[in-house]
Amino acid sequence: MSTLWRVRYAQRTAGVKNSAIRELLKVTQKPEIISFGGGLPAPDVFPVERFEQACHSVLAEHGALALQYGTTEGYEPLREMIAQNMVRYRIVAKAENVLITSGSQQALDLIGKLLINRGDRVVVEAPTYLGALQAFNVYGAQYVSVPIDDDGLCTEQLEPSLRTGPKFMYVLPNFQNPAGVTLSEGRRHQLILLADKYGIPIVEDDPYGQLRYEGEHIAPLVVLDHENLSRDKGFTLGNVIYLSTFSKTLAPGIRLAWIVAPEDVISKLVQLKQAADLHTSTFNQYVAYEVARDGFLDQHVKLIRQVYRERRDAMLQALTDYFPHEVTWTHPQGGLFLWVTLPEGTDSEALFRAALAENVAFVPGDSFYANNGHEGGRHMRLNFSHPQPELIYEGIRRLSLAVKMQLRAHVPH
Amino acid sequence: MSTLWRVRYAQRTAGVKNSAIRELLKVTQKPEIISFGGGLPAPDVFPVERFEQACHSVLAEHGALALQYGTTEGYEPLREMIAQNMVRYRIVAKAENVLITSGSQQALDLIGKLLINRGDRVVVEAPTYLGALQAFNVYGAQYVSVPIDDDGLCTEQLEPSLRTGPKFMYVLPNFQNPAGVTLSEGRRHQLILLADKYGIPIVEDDPYGQLRYEGEHIAPLVVLDHENLSRDKGFTLGNVIYLSTFSKTLAPGIRLAWIVAPEDVISKLVQLKQAADLHTSTFNQYVAYEVARDGFLDQHVKLIRQVYRERRDAMLQALTDYFPHEVTWTHPQGGLFLWVTLPEGTDSEALFRAALAENVAFVPGDSFYANNGHEGGRHMRLNFSHPQPELIYEGIRRLSLAVKMQLRAHVPH
Repeated sequence: MSTLWRVRYAQRTAGVKNSAIRELLKVTQKPEIISFGGGLPAPDVFPVERFEQACHSVLAEHGALALQYGTTEGYEPLREMIAQNMVRYRIVAKAENVLITSGSQQALDLIGKLLINRGDRVVVEAPTYLGALQAFNVYGAQYVSVPIDDDGLCTEQLEPSLRTGPKFMYVLPNFQNPAGVTLSEGRRHQLILLADKYGIPIVEDDPYGQLRYEGEHIAPLVVLDHENLSRDKGFTLGNVIYLSTFSKTLAPGIRLAWIVAPEDVISKLVQLKQAADLHTSTFNQYVAYEVARDGFLDQHVKLIRQVYRERRDAMLQALTDYFPHEVTWTHPQGGLFLWVTLPEGTDSEALFRAALAENVAFVPGDSFYANNGHEGGRHMRLNFSHPQPELIYEGIRRLSLAVKMQLRAHVPH
Repeated sequence: MSTLWRVRYAQRTAGVKNSAIRELLKVTQKPEIISFGGGLPAPDVFPVERFEQACHSVLAEHGALALQYGTTEGYEPLREMIAQNMVRYRIVAKAENVLITSGSQQALDLIGKLLINRGDRVVVEAPTYLGALQAFNVYGAQYVSVPIDDDGLCTEQLEPSLRTGPKFMYVLPNFQNPAGVTLSEGRRHQLILLADKYGIPIVEDDPYGQLRYEGEHIAPLVVLDHENLSRDKGFTLGNVIYLSTFSKTLAPGIRLAWIVAPEDVISKLVQLKQAADLHTSTFNQYVAYEVARDGFLDQHVKLIRQVYRERRDAMLQALTDYFPHEVTWTHPQGGLFLWVTLPEGTDSEALFRAALAENVAFVPGDSFYANNGHEGGRHMRLNFSHPQPELIYEGIRRLSLAVKMQLRAHVPH
């Protein structure tokens, strides 16, 4: 019936498919299923009362402005608060370096729009964040995948991919989605030097940086780049665009994130954002500022760390208790995810179906690889932030049944 | 310093410039200036108290869901409410035909992404909505402009442009932005027949449809298309994608609008939206639903009509009282804008500078023409929804001084 439209679809729609995760989330909404599938924050830590106070005072004091159109760059006090908060992580940014986006997904979309011509190469981790691949696919990106291990991106394997002339590298240094691994300090330095040597800039995606449950904070790439460049050339912000978000520290439903970049890059992104959605909800920006202010955000992040650490520990314990010894998993120092590796020959898609029969869900590893093949077939991503500890324990027990069955069926003896 | 980034910008960024309106809005934020420049709704009619009650009950009753990630399509009860409300305008749509977007600007961006390959032609009115041009420019659209008069798009001049093989037509039938004119019923029928004859679909942008201050409601194109197609071929939704928004009836700061389209087009748009921002703020969708429900939206629209009609009348009266007889203007039956035509030879950019010196602002006509040239040099767009009647009267008085000065300086005697 709407052939009229279909024959008119632009070339870029060919790169866009329904996300496996999206389809999967529909299945796993059944109440009897324990889901380790989504990347959902725990609703039990949403600061609902604080939001209620904030909505009340924003509407009482700033109703006319908070409900009106706003500037594309974002609400000035919020941009300033973000810039100030980042100083503690040694990120040297002023409000002018901060663009408010409608979630980090929009940041990825704007970056794809800004940088990617059809056929351009982007260096990504294997595995990497599925949403970034979806955003970049629209603009016709090709990918050069570099493996990761327990210390994150294997920088010693990076140089051949940089010689292919990629537009940029996309990296998640902290508690990576999906693998939960963290890029070591040594490798961060190496990555920055390589970026400088080959002139290939970096998009650093850091949604979970504040959610560290053990170990020491490691300086983000944007800081190391700054220190490297300013030592040699007097630059401030240079080769790294940095992304972060309120989705994991306040709530994802308000769709608020930000980009940190040099001012002329911000100015170009502002033009693209204006064409994309004029600006992010003024009301939500006022409310988030009101929620976060006066130290609330810091206090709240402490609570989230405590709750999520407990859940991570519950999952690690349950895996140790229930899973067969041939299966291994990462030990995330923070974030929301853990990555399980099954013996060669297992098929995580088949395992997924078996798990659903046991009323437990996860995301099969295949979804997280830019370049097809069966690299992901042995992996599953498990989320530990959303289910409560008892459910994590029960869910891993159920999953272990499916795993054992798969191992018996598929692994040669 | 960030040459590294600049040399990497994609081709599509070349089509994107800072909007004249955007820059202008910055100038006109000075308190001494009376601005007819922006397209801002009146903050005095924002239903602030109703928003406050809605935020309270949403957070108290649905906090865990309203602050969480949501589906890309949008909050189901809101989509159903929108579908039901549209039935009164004879728009035959189910919730499955409705996609919630982050403002109509995002709808335009998604449509550009869906349909426009670089170099594709789009038929637009001359003048047309600047934001649509900005959205489509990113994807490399070329434009075929068709003139408008007091009855809207001159459909009798349309056929040559349809023979150029455009991807689609972009039309604002009600109280057009910028000209304030309305497409007559006869021309609507003609447009639908031509769309069908040439197989060129229509994007119908209807942000102001509910804000009619006089005259009879005219069926939207999506309805006439439906009736035309269903009579002949048993179709329901077909050749028209219809856009509308809560920005002018509730508040623009919540960034909530919607697209109505056949289900398979919606499904493709959902994939693109997922890659662009995952979904529109769950919280805002819950709140808007709570604000609009139980007949509040209808009651509130009546109030807005009353307030804006008064302002439109104040502006029409002031123009009659102050402006020289060589100057003409449209008589909008609704919406937010009125379009002034100056004698040939006047330059609205020069007039703009002269007006600023008198502490009054408007948007020069040039911004609203897809194809350059000086078509817009004789025009100005005046917004009457934002300033209160006394200020409208005073602002038009000031503007008349600048106009008279320009006429003396530029028009041959």
